[in-house]
Amino acid sequence: MSGYKKYKKSDNNSYALGITLTFEMLKFKPEKAVRVYIHSQMKENETYKKLLDLCKNTGTEVIHTDKIFHVLTQKENCFCIGEFEKFESAPDAGKDHVVLVNPSNAGNLGTIMRSALGFGFNNIAIIRPAVDCFDPKAVRASMGALFSTNIKYYDSFDEYMEEYGSERKLYPFMLQAEKKLNEINPEEKRFSLIFGNEATGLPEKFLSLGEPLIIPITSKIDSLNLPIAASIAMYQAFVNSGRRRA
Amino acid sequence: MSGYKKYKKSDNNSYALGITLTFEMLKFKPEKAVRVYIHSQMKENETYKKLLDLCKNTGTEVIHTDKIFHVLTQKENCFCIGEFEKFESAPDAGKDHVVLVNPSNAGNLGTIMRSALGFGFNNIAIIRPAVDCFDPKAVRASMGALFSTNIKYYDSFDEYMEEYGSERKLYPFMLQAEKKLNEINPEEKRFSLIFGNEATGLPEKFLSLGEPLIIPITSKIDSLNLPIAASIAMYQAFVNSGRRRA
Repeated sequence: MSGYKKYKKSDNNSYALGITLTFEMLKFKPEKAVRVYIHSQMKENETYKKLLDLCKNTGTEVIHTDKIFHVLTQKENCFCIGEFEKFESAPDAGKDHVVLVNPSNAGNLGTIMRSALGFGFNNIAIIRPAVDCFDPKAVRASMGALFSTNIKYYDSFDEYMEEYGSERKLYPFMLQAEKKLNEINPEEKRFSLIFGNEATGLPEKFLSLGEPLIIPITSKIDSLNLPIAASIAMYQAFVNSGRRRA
Repeated sequence: MSGYKKYKKSDNNSYALGITLTFEMLKFKPEKAVRVYIHSQMKENETYKKLLDLCKNTGTEVIHTDKIFHVLTQKENCFCIGEFEKFESAPDAGKDHVVLVNPSNAGNLGTIMRSALGFGFNNIAIIRPAVDCFDPKAVRASMGALFSTNIKYYDSFDEYMEEYGSERKLYPFMLQAEKKLNEINPEEKRFSLIFGNEATGLPEKFLSLGEPLIIPITSKIDSLNLPIAASIAMYQAFVNSGRRRA
């Protein structure tokens, strides 16, 4: 028995699988880094030396073991794992937000975090029930963006609104909306881009909230996939008002 | 021994996993449909009756067996598989294209096909070496868009250019490009949006081809993931010149 266990949502710590993610963890959330595991097949090259230096400088324990790799990863070329304490940091009230209502897929959530950081939307609210943003699959898909993101869970959209609703424009993305994403004008107020669940979208009630938008598509597909819809919306908002956010 | 084997790239036939995909196959490529497999746990509801009708109308054989499901799918709720003959249909010279140079991931390729159909770019050229667009994972990620797409493989970009290069504007997407996607004007000529491999992007030589573009992002991420970059580019082109393509 190795003593290492598969990641569970209820755990206090999670894992950055692979050396690139481990670097991101140490660079952007050193205060949450717990330890770094090194596999016996890790090559002792320059990158490895930099990693050890960074561990030393951040006071992060280094453990040489192969056992945890059997438990946490199926990838053959993963020789480094960073363990970190989970964190919660509320979205900045002075910034534009992305609000994800009931997202269900860890890979999708990670991909959205990566795009969000790329378009200056690294303030994310997630409405429960929802997938765990610390699932190692989400961390991996985020390419480490998680470590540079303010992200917080809310039990309901109303709870989010109580905290951030005033003086903020709301843009729910819905297939039933009439106004097209590309028709909006650059927004002066702070705003939130709101997206629903992968399979069901946003509940009907969001149609009467703020200014519902649709991403124009041909009639040949029903919808875009969630990370793509969210990324296109963030791209459009970024090029409309990029200077403010950058 | 069931006689059913896992899908291989060299096979003449491939598979649409699940009832939604099977419907797409029968609706949009009935002439390539070979047979439909039904699992014993399939519910005999209205959808099922419609499926049987469609099989009858298209002259598609229906086989009741559970065996092929053990071989082809791990999903617990997949009770229908459509088998189809692979097809090749060259991109339409009169339309705008997406050109994928050395794509390596089946899920990504499928996701791009889905977005492409949504933005009127269902004419796709793929430059080898490249992942197989008929891999059941690609078919599934495409949500059936494959069955409405003209898609063809080329051994080199030069081979593609010989066939389509004249009277066509080229837009290679590269991180080294200076011009931003959102700065281009609506294009009068036919054009091709060109994207490189997931890990390496397009080779340097594409910088001297047509008008290289970059999708503007903050300095906080290195790049967007491939299906997202391609979808954003197609979205921008669609809203610039949507009426022509729709």
